[in-house]
Amino acid sequence: MVLATAETTTTLDFGPAVALSCRECGTRYPLGPSFACIECFGPLEVAYTWTSPGDGPAATVTRRQIEAGPANIWRYRSLLPVPSDVLTKRNLAPGWTKLVKADNLARELGLRSLHVKDDSGNPTHSFKDRVVAIALEAARTFGFHTLSCSSTGNLAGAVTAAAARAGLDACVFIPADLEEAKIVMASVYGGRLVGIEGTYDDVNRFCSELIGDPLGEKWGFVNVNLRPFYGEGSKTLAFEIAEQLGWRIPDQIVIPIASGSQLTKVDKGFRELIKLGLVEDKPYKIFGAQAEGCSPVAAAFKAGHDIVRPVKPDTIAKSLAIGNPADGPYVLDIARRTGGAVEDVTDAEIVDAIRLLARTEGIFAETAGGVTVGVLRKLAENGVLDPDAETVVLNTGDGLKTLDAVSAHARPTAVIRPSLNAFRTAVADNS
Amino acid sequence: MVLATAETTTTLDFGPAVALSCRECGTRYPLGPSFACIECFGPLEVAYTWTSPGDGPAATVTRRQIEAGPANIWRYRSLLPVPSDVLTKRNLAPGWTKLVKADNLARELGLRSLHVKDDSGNPTHSFKDRVVAIALEAARTFGFHTLSCSSTGNLAGAVTAAAARAGLDACVFIPADLEEAKIVMASVYGGRLVGIEGTYDDVNRFCSELIGDPLGEKWGFVNVNLRPFYGEGSKTLAFEIAEQLGWRIPDQIVIPIASGSQLTKVDKGFRELIKLGLVEDKPYKIFGAQAEGCSPVAAAFKAGHDIVRPVKPDTIAKSLAIGNPADGPYVLDIARRTGGAVEDVTDAEIVDAIRLLARTEGIFAETAGGVTVGVLRKLAENGVLDPDAETVVLNTGDGLKTLDAVSAHARPTAVIRPSLNAFRTAVADNS
Repeated sequence: MVLATAETTTTLDFGPAVALSCRECGTRYPLGPSFACIECFGPLEVAYTWTSPGDGPAATVTRRQIEAGPANIWRYRSLLPVPSDVLTKRNLAPGWTKLVKADNLARELGLRSLHVKDDSGNPTHSFKDRVVAIALEAARTFGFHTLSCSSTGNLAGAVTAAAARAGLDACVFIPADLEEAKIVMASVYGGRLVGIEGTYDDVNRFCSELIGDPLGEKWGFVNVNLRPFYGEGSKTLAFEIAEQLGWRIPDQIVIPIASGSQLTKVDKGFRELIKLGLVEDKPYKIFGAQAEGCSPVAAAFKAGHDIVRPVKPDTIAKSLAIGNPADGPYVLDIARRTGGAVEDVTDAEIVDAIRLLARTEGIFAETAGGVTVGVLRKLAENGVLDPDAETVVLNTGDGLKTLDAVSAHARPTAVIRPSLNAFRTAVADNS
Repeated sequence: MVLATAETTTTLDFGPAVALSCRECGTRYPLGPSFACIECFGPLEVAYTWTSPGDGPAATVTRRQIEAGPANIWRYRSLLPVPSDVLTKRNLAPGWTKLVKADNLARELGLRSLHVKDDSGNPTHSFKDRVVAIALEAARTFGFHTLSCSSTGNLAGAVTAAAARAGLDACVFIPADLEEAKIVMASVYGGRLVGIEGTYDDVNRFCSELIGDPLGEKWGFVNVNLRPFYGEGSKTLAFEIAEQLGWRIPDQIVIPIASGSQLTKVDKGFRELIKLGLVEDKPYKIFGAQAEGCSPVAAAFKAGHDIVRPVKPDTIAKSLAIGNPADGPYVLDIARRTGGAVEDVTDAEIVDAIRLLARTEGIFAETAGGVTVGVLRKLAENGVLDPDAETVVLNTGDGLKTLDAVSAHARPTAVIRPSLNAFRTAVADNS
């Protein structure tokens, strides 16, 4: 474990970020490649000028400044721990993905107002490009030469692609039994891809060991020693949703849970927008979504527990298959505090939901998107969602990476010789 | 064949479009679902107010108007044959994809200034979303209930996705031996997918028959009876490249050739920008790219012929595998008129180029992108490209759809147990 040190980083440019701060006890540390508090082992978060009045000028970020920025996450650079000159750096410039007004799906589910935030439009077709972009800038600032991660698949592709663009080395670690598309995507960009015989949690433990070893020196593990920076990337989902709704926080939002980091950071993003006066302060409900085959947070939520009991994942939603989610307790807090919930769906419901979203909105989601849309449907049917409230559901990945989930259902209607008679016989008469 | 008719369409709203006009003899027809001239069988193109001073007011489109538009192709709606209220319609809103400054690739190829126009960021991850979006609006305007096409794969997915969002039926036709990813993607959105035993050219001939049959009545075949509208969508590539370069046409551009339509429409787009005073009038060179296994236009170019002799395709670049390219002669004209060229690369060079682009820029291209980047490399090495001129290369598709092309080369470096010793042995000592 990389604990915070007293090593000074005051000369490093992280824009509006001024320190790392323990989420549990509030102890503050200089900005550095560390992720756990020396005092209490709590996770570290990035603190900004506006959360720390003593450390610098109050933020004066305006909607107009943001709107004048580029069509990617760097439009929010004044709200992120990145160098002031990030616009001049070589990176994948992810984000500003579509917020799709999903009227067809809303009608099927009996909802008045529904949007899909579709992160399949990112450079490597998942939301991971957002978090990696922030971690990459931190890695450069700290002088790391190799970018690394433990991954359930999407992250490995995002890291190797980002490293390729930036000119860094990459060495990434995945469970060896991942989907073929994710394996190819994680290795085509160059760098080293290492398959680990075991679950994602085994991969994660291995990376924690490696980071303490001389082998892993000068390596930036985006989701380990760069985790406080990495996590901030998920806030851009909250920023974009609010801006794309016309600077308004939705009433209800459904977010997938793997480690739980994304859900907690979307909440943090909404709270920062409120604090900075960029949106009106209003209540919102956050709903977490898991696959039944890996639903430790949903189980804890339903049982009324504060603690998440680890499970061994068994689901087609491999990108969410984290059996020991680090941010699980925080997710429970947020779901309860905002009046939301955590729900899960079966593999069959995931497949149905992928097909529902494709058929109604022309969006082909990864299994993780099947989880959120499936949970959305379940919550709508159970009356847990308010059908009249403005609702957003996240699609964080791309169906092309999890073809096997739907390939049995997505076949040609017919295969025929090129003749009108053959077409009449095979198709038209059956339609 | 659907010939133009005298049927009046003056009450239909196609924005700035005023007529169809024969590319060969200039005969004009009302806007309608037809694609061939009654007089000479030449292909019909869309004519606008600014090409037809007698028909309406001169266009007064400004950069500022366009820049104030949405981050999709509809920012150019005043230059496209679409209804004035297209922003209120339910569609996939494609376009405004990234123009990536490709400094790493430029360095490897010895070029001073290179950009990749990366259309993998479109909703179904190919440039086809652009052309389908225009054809869809035409289909709605003409009252068609079913959207259809002959496709080498990408188009089928783009059509079925667009139909799903718009609430139209879809029935699309592909060669039965396509890549699995394209088959799944073309059927997951619903509608009917029909595999034809034969080549794309067989599929295309079948669709031309179907369109004359009562079965195909009220069907909008995006690339047959809606082709004049469909083709205009490719102009948005030219518009975006010019705007993203700061309202400047590049000196050199490399474009893939399937039917040749895209290349001719990019040229048309550049000429329209010049005509409307949106960019400076300056020379530019257009280079066409084909796979050696389907290179009828490159062969004609090299032989100095004006006629393209059809071939039977045999290449991994299936999305470009059109052996009888309808716009081949126009491509030859444009390459010669602008001082460009048409070149081809082998399947092995395509694979190398996919890997080169991934390794240098973090962009995972389809085989069609391997063709353009491979041709770019070949032209640079042969001294045909000016290394000091501003160059753009198109990536029109997504590597996730043609995994097989690179999967043999994109494997894990190692598969190990989760231990530091295993990692040392397997990877670190060999690196």
